[in-house]
Amino acid sequence: MSAPTEPSPVRIFDTTLRDGEQSPGCTMSLAEKLDVARALARLGVDVIEAGFPAASPGDAEAVHAIAESLGTGGPVVCGLARATESDIVTCAAAIAPAARRRLHTFLATSDIHLRHKLRISRDEAIARAHAAVSLARTLVDDVEFSPEDATRSDPDFLCEVLAAAVDAGATTLNVPDTVGYATTAEYEALVARVCALAARSPGVVVSTHCHDDLGLAVANSLAGVRAGARQVECTINGIGERAGNAALEEVVMALLTRADHFGVGTTVDTRELTRLSRLVTACTGAHVAPNKAVVGANAFAHEAGIHQDGMLKHRATYEIMTPESVGADGSSLVLGKHSGRHALRRRLESMGLSLDDARFDEVFARFKELADRKKVVDARDLRALVTAAHEHVATGWALLQLQVASGTHVIPTATVRVRAPGGGTHVASGTGSGPVDASCRALNAVVGEVGELEGFTVRAVTEGIAAAGEVTVRVRDVHTGRTHLGHGVHTDVVTASAEAYVDAINRLYMARDSQAERGAWSGERGGTDSVAPRSPLHAPRSAYPSPAGATEVVS
Amino acid sequence: MSAPTEPSPVRIFDTTLRDGEQSPGCTMSLAEKLDVARALARLGVDVIEAGFPAASPGDAEAVHAIAESLGTGGPVVCGLARATESDIVTCAAAIAPAARRRLHTFLATSDIHLRHKLRISRDEAIARAHAAVSLARTLVDDVEFSPEDATRSDPDFLCEVLAAAVDAGATTLNVPDTVGYATTAEYEALVARVCALAARSPGVVVSTHCHDDLGLAVANSLAGVRAGARQVECTINGIGERAGNAALEEVVMALLTRADHFGVGTTVDTRELTRLSRLVTACTGAHVAPNKAVVGANAFAHEAGIHQDGMLKHRATYEIMTPESVGADGSSLVLGKHSGRHALRRRLESMGLSLDDARFDEVFARFKELADRKKVVDARDLRALVTAAHEHVATGWALLQLQVASGTHVIPTATVRVRAPGGGTHVASGTGSGPVDASCRALNAVVGEVGELEGFTVRAVTEGIAAAGEVTVRVRDVHTGRTHLGHGVHTDVVTASAEAYVDAINRLYMARDSQAERGAWSGERGGTDSVAPRSPLHAPRSAYPSPAGATEVVS
Repeated sequence: MSAPTEPSPVRIFDTTLRDGEQSPGCTMSLAEKLDVARALARLGVDVIEAGFPAASPGDAEAVHAIAESLGTGGPVVCGLARATESDIVTCAAAIAPAARRRLHTFLATSDIHLRHKLRISRDEAIARAHAAVSLARTLVDDVEFSPEDATRSDPDFLCEVLAAAVDAGATTLNVPDTVGYATTAEYEALVARVCALAARSPGVVVSTHCHDDLGLAVANSLAGVRAGARQVECTINGIGERAGNAALEEVVMALLTRADHFGVGTTVDTRELTRLSRLVTACTGAHVAPNKAVVGANAFAHEAGIHQDGMLKHRATYEIMTPESVGADGSSLVLGKHSGRHALRRRLESMGLSLDDARFDEVFARFKELADRKKVVDARDLRALVTAAHEHVATGWALLQLQVASGTHVIPTATVRVRAPGGGTHVASGTGSGPVDASCRALNAVVGEVGELEGFTVRAVTEGIAAAGEVTVRVRDVHTGRTHLGHGVHTDVVTASAEAYVDAINRLYMARDSQAERGAWSGERGGTDSVAPRSPLHAPRSAYPSPAGATEVVS
Repeated sequence: MSAPTEPSPVRIFDTTLRDGEQSPGCTMSLAEKLDVARALARLGVDVIEAGFPAASPGDAEAVHAIAESLGTGGPVVCGLARATESDIVTCAAAIAPAARRRLHTFLATSDIHLRHKLRISRDEAIARAHAAVSLARTLVDDVEFSPEDATRSDPDFLCEVLAAAVDAGATTLNVPDTVGYATTAEYEALVARVCALAARSPGVVVSTHCHDDLGLAVANSLAGVRAGARQVECTINGIGERAGNAALEEVVMALLTRADHFGVGTTVDTRELTRLSRLVTACTGAHVAPNKAVVGANAFAHEAGIHQDGMLKHRATYEIMTPESVGADGSSLVLGKHSGRHALRRRLESMGLSLDDARFDEVFARFKELADRKKVVDARDLRALVTAAHEHVATGWALLQLQVASGTHVIPTATVRVRAPGGGTHVASGTGSGPVDASCRALNAVVGEVGELEGFTVRAVTEGIAAAGEVTVRVRDVHTGRTHLGHGVHTDVVTASAEAYVDAINRLYMARDSQAERGAWSGERGGTDSVAPRSPLHAPRSAYPSPAGATEVVS
């Protein structure tokens, strides 16, 4: 059985790994998804939507791995499926290993979606919703149904579809504001109507799912709770399609801080919120603004930035929640160059990161290199190192050496030594408009002109002049048009950029492999999310080319 | 008279330059404030809150300069003042040159603020509010009154204070949710009550002022409009104290997109929103998240990222507003290395940036240098260049030459040639954990160990592998503890970082000068904002030291 025995008053349904992960540039590797899933379990969310298994074999594999990795006491593991037999069967198989599992199936109900996207009648929609939920219930006890674009649907028809879903055995009814169009008053009224319908069937929970296109996702979710919803779908940092979903940390802190008003709580351990936010930022490269509520760098700046005498005794004058309550006080546990493998492993475990031996070895090697250059290595450094140490590093291209000369009156020149995926070492040099440009051009001389650098961001992970820099690059595949993120961490920003570029190139080739697999999966994918761009060129399964360009093979 | 003859149904009161500018790390130079004020006038806001003149001579000067620069057809220029005679007199003098001007005075009304901060009784608060507004009305026709922390005040007492303010001649009554504590339902009810009070005095407008600590600033502002408020106080990108204020672009687009629901509009030209967002980001270094509503990189990503056949004919299925409506389609007008002074000036003017000759010369020189390294220079490059060309560059430290060697197997080493503020050129070198660290250490050898690098972020301003990088560094003054931002733009990220570090050092010394002036201004400054940290060391007015460290004077 999937239903929790003692449900929290408001269930927190995290969809960072599904709606969040599908937003542009937020693609995560399997290892990153597992890290986030374990961290969400520590946070204490009720449901983790782990992915959309029918989208690709890679997505199915990730959902399956997450389902396997979470124990009996952990959150319900949920998978998304369109209202089709093949999607539902694929999804049920992916979530099968979970101790507690949910199948989430959806079908659009707005006329605009029925007419232009699905091209079916209202009657067909009702029948399809009923059939989908019925099939799902033969495979899983806990089934959620989402009428996509609910807020732009005819409310009477919406209720007909939902009644059919309940009749077929749906245990959760979602009210998605798919395009972020509803005002707070409208959303509250609509959820109230759905709650009235659900109240006729004991045990059926109503859920909110709000997008932030007009800046209203959190307020609408809370209005839904006021109207009777007892599940909120949300993501860490509010990532997701377009302007994203309701931010989990804001919903949870609003319910907690204003418990006097809302009268309901959650089971979330709020002291994990800052940690989760940083982990998701590290995995997706989607930074939060300094003025982001709850987890932004300035969210508690009245605390950190102001040292006047008077403020401490007037704390309540400007503070409605404490930095400690969301874990923003940071960890003082730091490591240095003399710290050994045991200390590093214990520290990673305290951060919720348990790595397999191969990955740990990779992280330990990077840790020693960083500790040589930087006196103290703290939690943020470690998280960045873990993010950079992807499982595919060992099998893709690897940067062995980099040497750069640059400045205001010289032509920036870089020389790289690179290990090819199939083995063999190549050396190449290049010039450019700066040291990063020169390094990327030198790398292109080895790997071929496969990607274009679309943008890069660098952020000091830790304070101090010797800070480790975390570089995120966006590289566009010149053949498929898809954008891939790469991460690199190093005290030298140019080295970090070159590592990030190599990482992105490796991901680019991985995606070409995955696209080739995905060719088997077709049909329109109109979810509460939108469609991933498809490759016009399906590269062969093992897409790593032979080294191209004027490179010299030295070993 | 300050009141517009044909007021827009909902007045947009922008406080980017007051509440926004006072948030940590968002300090702007005078030139940047003037750029933002002119851009806000082009955007078509009704009121610009230009600053808090009594806070420092520099703040008063900025408000005065903005008041002078905006013409008769432009927005009302507003200044903030505590409810004291000296604040009000100082503020009235600062806004005096404005064609249309407003004085905004405030006094806390919550018991917690009255007791712990102001240490006055409720009766004294009523008398003080009445006296402040009365005095202000002898100096300015258009007076706004804010009961600070209104949402945590006793509503009956709040109404007594507001009635006294109206009695004394206040023309706008604000309802500040100073600590971002109110729920949407509470805020709507409170504003409705204040509107009922205001309705007894024709011409009195009720305003919202919401903070985003619980993620509700936009929803609460809109709820206020539903309750009858006809002014919304907000900031570009939602910057401001802690989690910031209601985001102007979200409020405006929600009112426009859901005009069917709210029934009121604004006079804002929404096509300027993206431009304003980027200008404020460039001036403050406060980046917006990719999933930020309206102005985030992914806000319209269903448009940019998806190239499948079917999407274009189904646009309305996922799109409730167009990228064009907020000016997110970008400008195709680009310049290159052959573009001359005239073309550059016309292009800058089309972006709303009219520079004086000295600043234009500085930008032109940087433009030619950039165009030499990069084929096309677009609007984003130009805006970054203008931001980097601060008026104080000519008088502070200047980086003349930089030369760097780095890589994975070398000790990163940098050599700098720097012009001192008083004239004279110095050369120094340094090593570090990377080329940026080495450059900063080399610079410290010239300027002294005045600042610690707290963090830096780099962002590619434009696409392509030869992208210009915009670097923002945060440098902490080792004496005062204050953090200063520095900006640098260059195709070479290391050079951009060194320029940004020099910029931050110049700002650090400017701030020490300004702190010395500010010493004359004392008394507690508990506004709708909080207090700027004060320097324990008041540096002499001209705080530039003689070059320190082992540097060699070469000319």
